[in-house]
Amino acid sequence: MTESVKYPLDESRMPKSWYNLIADLPAPPPPVLHPGTLQPIGPDDLAPLFPLALIMQEVSTEREIEIPEPVRDIYRQWRPSPLYRARRLEKALGTPARIYYKYEGVSPAGSHKPNTAVPQAFYNKEAGVKRIATETGAGQWGSSLAFAGALFDIEVEVFMVRVSYQQKPYRRALMETWGATCTPSPSERTAAGRAILAKRPDHPGSLGIAISEAVEIAAQRDDTKYALGSVLNHVLLHQTVVGLEAMTQLEMADDYPDVVVGCTGGGSNFAGIAFPFIGMQLRGGANAKKRRIVAVEPSACPSLTRGKYAYDFGDTAHLTPLTKMHTLGSTFTPPGFHAGGLRYHGMAPMVSHCKELGLIEAVAYHQRACFDAGVTFARAEGIVPAPEANHAVKGAIEEALRCKREGKSEVILFNLCGHGHFDMQAYSDYFSGKLVDQDYDEAELAMALSGLPSVPA
Amino acid sequence: MTESVKYPLDESRMPKSWYNLIADLPAPPPPVLHPGTLQPIGPDDLAPLFPLALIMQEVSTEREIEIPEPVRDIYRQWRPSPLYRARRLEKALGTPARIYYKYEGVSPAGSHKPNTAVPQAFYNKEAGVKRIATETGAGQWGSSLAFAGALFDIEVEVFMVRVSYQQKPYRRALMETWGATCTPSPSERTAAGRAILAKRPDHPGSLGIAISEAVEIAAQRDDTKYALGSVLNHVLLHQTVVGLEAMTQLEMADDYPDVVVGCTGGGSNFAGIAFPFIGMQLRGGANAKKRRIVAVEPSACPSLTRGKYAYDFGDTAHLTPLTKMHTLGSTFTPPGFHAGGLRYHGMAPMVSHCKELGLIEAVAYHQRACFDAGVTFARAEGIVPAPEANHAVKGAIEEALRCKREGKSEVILFNLCGHGHFDMQAYSDYFSGKLVDQDYDEAELAMALSGLPSVPA
Repeated sequence: MTESVKYPLDESRMPKSWYNLIADLPAPPPPVLHPGTLQPIGPDDLAPLFPLALIMQEVSTEREIEIPEPVRDIYRQWRPSPLYRARRLEKALGTPARIYYKYEGVSPAGSHKPNTAVPQAFYNKEAGVKRIATETGAGQWGSSLAFAGALFDIEVEVFMVRVSYQQKPYRRALMETWGATCTPSPSERTAAGRAILAKRPDHPGSLGIAISEAVEIAAQRDDTKYALGSVLNHVLLHQTVVGLEAMTQLEMADDYPDVVVGCTGGGSNFAGIAFPFIGMQLRGGANAKKRRIVAVEPSACPSLTRGKYAYDFGDTAHLTPLTKMHTLGSTFTPPGFHAGGLRYHGMAPMVSHCKELGLIEAVAYHQRACFDAGVTFARAEGIVPAPEANHAVKGAIEEALRCKREGKSEVILFNLCGHGHFDMQAYSDYFSGKLVDQDYDEAELAMALSGLPSVPA
Repeated sequence: MTESVKYPLDESRMPKSWYNLIADLPAPPPPVLHPGTLQPIGPDDLAPLFPLALIMQEVSTEREIEIPEPVRDIYRQWRPSPLYRARRLEKALGTPARIYYKYEGVSPAGSHKPNTAVPQAFYNKEAGVKRIATETGAGQWGSSLAFAGALFDIEVEVFMVRVSYQQKPYRRALMETWGATCTPSPSERTAAGRAILAKRPDHPGSLGIAISEAVEIAAQRDDTKYALGSVLNHVLLHQTVVGLEAMTQLEMADDYPDVVVGCTGGGSNFAGIAFPFIGMQLRGGANAKKRRIVAVEPSACPSLTRGKYAYDFGDTAHLTPLTKMHTLGSTFTPPGFHAGGLRYHGMAPMVSHCKELGLIEAVAYHQRACFDAGVTFARAEGIVPAPEANHAVKGAIEEALRCKREGKSEVILFNLCGHGHFDMQAYSDYFSGKLVDQDYDEAELAMALSGLPSVPA
């Protein structure tokens, strides 16, 4: 019988630094602009929301940034995460390709999110912060920050989009188990929330509103900061521990990827697996052969493949700075598909910048095709992926089938960013035929794009 | 900051054999009796239900039974599982005890059950079996066998208690994702099911009925066998990989347990962590110091602490052989508490035998106290335990608090047999105050015990 192979990495070889791609890029990304002045923002503008250490990481141009020892101590609970050669999947597909996947579902929250939640909680604790406020949609980020907060004895206050709060009581229970407070948003706790509830008491909420509430709480209290689970440079930085480990593990396997695949919502999981390989290619050297880096996104929320590269707000309430990114427009509302972690109108500025530089390519798939791929993967490899991760699985399988058609034995690496144990409703819908492909509304996209803020060149 | 410590075990040190406690016991357990003749059964009696290799393991007196290489290949996907020193929990409790836990939630099904599902599927495949029928209550066992069936390309047919089938669609979706068929029981597919539905079309089902259906399917078809997820000797045998690994990892930590704690339903998880340590004690030698082995069971289904040691049936429909065990009576129906994996009227004969020999002790706790312990654990260690595992956590915490009172720095080892990601409804009920302690009905217990089969001494 063909068995898949695990490449465990000794703890002593876990990376001691995160990798900062900015150091190796031919050009820096466009500056982040203040929403009022349209001038580049500085560290001081971010000080009310983030501890200084994270702000310095956000703007750093150093190639390597040391992972603090207390963060590494906690990483060790589940890291280094395993890398697998998916030989059973290769056999099921009949492909000459060699498929490897990095598995981030081994974390206590079941996804890659704790890779950044832990250092964010650490730096806040170091800065004397008592409380972190954040928003969450489906709950993956909120539960990961709740986990990290428990370990650093720091209060975590999560504003959860009301409709998700009601529909996903299990994620809320997970946050509460780790001691976090979870408030349905819009809420009476903030001016932003009260204003919305005054107009519409049964408002279902949105990520944009939840961000506004969390930011308001953080801005008005000295002992409270704000945290974001994707998009920002420092978040992407923390996730590079994934790609750095995978690079070492592939060396153990004496193999090297021709194609690197990751799914993209805000961009942090994709950046985590991809940026170290992009950097190696940019720096040249022995292992710097030309390779393809493929971002996979949902057809129903296709920022990289159908969005515009322009300055836009990160939230619907227009409280955030302006960043240049691939965006569907901050008022764009994607259909309610199951991969909640990929339902974001924009894209991490660094990922967008890489796309503009031609360093990555992007492809979009509908959700049924992604679940088809996920079920094929589960039956071959034994691991049930999260709906978000199914997009990466689909991307990897498409590459493997291309190799089969072309008779090429390329090496494919993808990031399996989380398990689907919290997402079985989606699989249940899939098997009962209730999971359908929804397209976004073309007119709405056009409207959202027409409303992009005007920024002088 | 005090950090918990992981003791990873190199794959090369994963056990090559399971450990069979029978070889070291001072007396063998009482024989299993044929329900008709009341005479000891032989291998032939079991042949319609199990492949020969498993029957031979069931009756083996060899100390070590080799783990086949294909089984070890699959074990390696998640094994060796980590052992942790729970230093953060120790600190939270203020105990001088040193607490270690073995974590089985890293398996693709999230619990220890795949440790036996994989070899059972393997031996069936080797014997040319096309299909395995089994029963499941809450779904942990059914999903683990579905996982193993997918890896060995063997059909798995699960009869799931109808009320659970309706209430727990997520576990069913998990089984279907791995390609298993899941039928609500009682069903029209068997004579046993049809007879019950004829009397009561809306029958909610029971484990006893589901066993009858699975056994009927297995007995009537040459290409189909039956599988059980606990209780039997060969199932307990397969789980000893847990304790054997823990023993090696504790040697790495240069420590050795004074107390070993496991939760007990059918007994396989408890046996997995405990039997290797009991065996070492029985054999004597350098590390054979006297230690306590503690089984923790739910107060609402207390077979070891309140049951009778007597011959009884394994199922309510009285199709199985008679085994001598601690039993609450095969007609006993425990209250519907959340640790579904512990709702069994009997106990593994080998575990019961150890209790009679004075090799283990047993204690029972109510579920709210167990969830209190589980939440304390989750906030300290970052892992959310399954409701079943919360019983072991409670047992370990009680031992640690005793050490605090007595000023003793004993070493406590427990088995954290699964994560709670599929069980967040229970935590949700806990936080909302809906989780209450239910006692079994004393009159019902007396009635069930009075109905035990009469077996001449």
